[in-house]
Amino acid sequence: MKEKTKVLLIICDGLGGRPVESMGGLTPLEVARTPNLDRLAANGISGLMDTIRPGVVPGSDVAHLAILGYDPYEVYTGRGPFEAAGVGIELKAGDIAFRCNFASVDDAGIVTDRRAGRIKDASPFDDVISAIELDDAKVLFKAGTEHRGALVLRGEGLSAAVGPLDPKKEGKPLKECKPLDDTPEAARTARILNQFSAKAREALEAHPLNEQRRADGKLPANAILIRGAGVVPHIPDFEERFELKAACISGAAFYAGIARSMGMDIVTVDGATGGLDTDVGVKITGACELLDKGYDMVFVHVKATDNLGHDGKAIEKAAMIERIDDALEAMPPEGTLLVLTGDHSTPCEMKNHSADPVPILMSGPGVRTDAVDTFGERPAMTGGLGRIRGIEVVPTFLGITGRAKKYGA
Amino acid sequence: MKEKTKVLLIICDGLGGRPVESMGGLTPLEVARTPNLDRLAANGISGLMDTIRPGVVPGSDVAHLAILGYDPYEVYTGRGPFEAAGVGIELKAGDIAFRCNFASVDDAGIVTDRRAGRIKDASPFDDVISAIELDDAKVLFKAGTEHRGALVLRGEGLSAAVGPLDPKKEGKPLKECKPLDDTPEAARTARILNQFSAKAREALEAHPLNEQRRADGKLPANAILIRGAGVVPHIPDFEERFELKAACISGAAFYAGIARSMGMDIVTVDGATGGLDTDVGVKITGACELLDKGYDMVFVHVKATDNLGHDGKAIEKAAMIERIDDALEAMPPEGTLLVLTGDHSTPCEMKNHSADPVPILMSGPGVRTDAVDTFGERPAMTGGLGRIRGIEVVPTFLGITGRAKKYGA
Repeated sequence: MKEKTKVLLIICDGLGGRPVESMGGLTPLEVARTPNLDRLAANGISGLMDTIRPGVVPGSDVAHLAILGYDPYEVYTGRGPFEAAGVGIELKAGDIAFRCNFASVDDAGIVTDRRAGRIKDASPFDDVISAIELDDAKVLFKAGTEHRGALVLRGEGLSAAVGPLDPKKEGKPLKECKPLDDTPEAARTARILNQFSAKAREALEAHPLNEQRRADGKLPANAILIRGAGVVPHIPDFEERFELKAACISGAAFYAGIARSMGMDIVTVDGATGGLDTDVGVKITGACELLDKGYDMVFVHVKATDNLGHDGKAIEKAAMIERIDDALEAMPPEGTLLVLTGDHSTPCEMKNHSADPVPILMSGPGVRTDAVDTFGERPAMTGGLGRIRGIEVVPTFLGITGRAKKYGA
Repeated sequence: MKEKTKVLLIICDGLGGRPVESMGGLTPLEVARTPNLDRLAANGISGLMDTIRPGVVPGSDVAHLAILGYDPYEVYTGRGPFEAAGVGIELKAGDIAFRCNFASVDDAGIVTDRRAGRIKDASPFDDVISAIELDDAKVLFKAGTEHRGALVLRGEGLSAAVGPLDPKKEGKPLKECKPLDDTPEAARTARILNQFSAKAREALEAHPLNEQRRADGKLPANAILIRGAGVVPHIPDFEERFELKAACISGAAFYAGIARSMGMDIVTVDGATGGLDTDVGVKITGACELLDKGYDMVFVHVKATDNLGHDGKAIEKAAMIERIDDALEAMPPEGTLLVLTGDHSTPCEMKNHSADPVPILMSGPGVRTDAVDTFGERPAMTGGLGRIRGIEVVPTFLGITGRAKKYGA
């Protein structure tokens, strides 16, 4: 039997943009010199994707759920569970998960730095934080990259209906956690979180790494800011759902966490950082090796395009897109459908996510090519995919690769 | 009052395709010389239709339900009821219907030919099969074209949750019918079907037509293969639903069965065979006569395009499309909107249905013409209808012909 076409899915975070006046009214994607993306568009089919639906500004979590085939209105409970899965905490459905920042607070309890002096590695704190004993819940804690981390509370009678302890701004005191509804579970969880916060401050103040940081003239990581509460949802297994054995390559742990929540294998490659210095080439090469080794689909995530959108750096965003393009010279691999898109637009003038639809292209065996021969927001408007939704991406490539199921007879 | 615009709906089964390498990357529809379809596209509006939704491979039954304005997720129960309606059995909601093949089995009960030596007319068996008496159900049976037929069980406490008796392959024994759930109704229906199967074999073995066939050196039609169980659904009347008095012309009984289930009148014309030898011209002429006689809509079904897709015959599929085009010279009739599409794609390389959307065109009075001037998968990508769903076809042409209802005030 002929082997079925495989799928390489590349999501460039925040890929879409808006016309930039100083770029002659072109978007960073349109102004970038992208011979490989243009060739893939010319040999493929393009379109525009509303990740959720027109006029909804997608967060990265719900955006990835939708593009990977899950209705976020059914499975999304908050960002915490994906942060926790991303740092490698083994979750159980029903756990309450939070995203955390290590921060610096002064003696009066005022947050002086929400990133604890941009601490590089907070993992030495994991043991003392995880050892914190609470009245009614078990603590699971892991630091992530830089100042980030994730907290999980496990126990009976907990709720995700609790407000953040993160004041969101510097110069303000740590917030007290408040329940968001009238249930005893929310009241109980707020109480537990306030207890955790106090005990974490004590443990961190006394930690030798903070003594060392103070001695080095650095800000201490002496508090944990908590937000993004979510009850860990049951997310059906991706392979069972779509009959695709899938792996994920992502420098940023959060996206790997989303993939891990779906049961995908997470593969790390040297040089994939989730930052501007990421090596897109090794991610693509790594993905091709995984496809050769028997995976049906590999999902590669590139974060830097979004960061540059948030920073409003249009020229740098265009340059990053050119670096992604360089890595696509040998694409698509034989017998593979390449699917490339963003999870949402992050226009440089807005320095934030927007509801503008994102260009998407599919190139490889079985594709009905269209007349589009460059990749960009405006060329994609006349593409053969038309305007699709994020939730339709997986069904569409299952159809092209001959893996879709028949309904009826 | 001016007479309302009428509708001629032509569904060419399996019309859509994919680029064929040996045809210079064109599809059979694109490569075919179709001056009439191109003229209709130039004077009309085109688009692409996902019969169900992107990434769903439509079976012919659910595809026709959707295009004719019924949500298959609401009314579809299985193929059997449409086969039964197609051969002319008068159905009642709640009947359990099956599609059947006459087959040849040897003395050991092994199926040696699933089509009973390609028997031309099995209707002489109707009386003895219909006379079979079962413990708890009434039998209604009719042969269809060639080896095909339909069985209906009528009675209290029956279920469609029963597996097939058809082994699907030659060289295997007739399967025993098994219940598919734990209900007493399913167990009872399975038992009744096994009883029917045994009695049908006895009755067929002893039938004079089989003695004659054996004497002529032909395979006997001495068993009935049963599959496609479905409880006869309540399908709301098409004329009541859409205020269109409608008729159907189809060479293949199954499609007429779908139309009959909706209450459409079924009209037979000489030369409409459901096969490659069908006379498309007489179908179109017949349809025009029906529109003259007072029908508001006529649905014409052409099967051969699908057969050639299943057989992988791209050149022949293109030639069949040219024959269809020849029949469209005088189209559309005055005061009539012509709507032409397929029920799904059947790409020759896949030899099966696919999820690729199907081109659709509407041409006639009241249409907002677009810039598309040829009919094909790729020209339709930029058409004015955009990308629509099967369930939107009837509402769209009701709108164009001024028959749609106002919502609000």
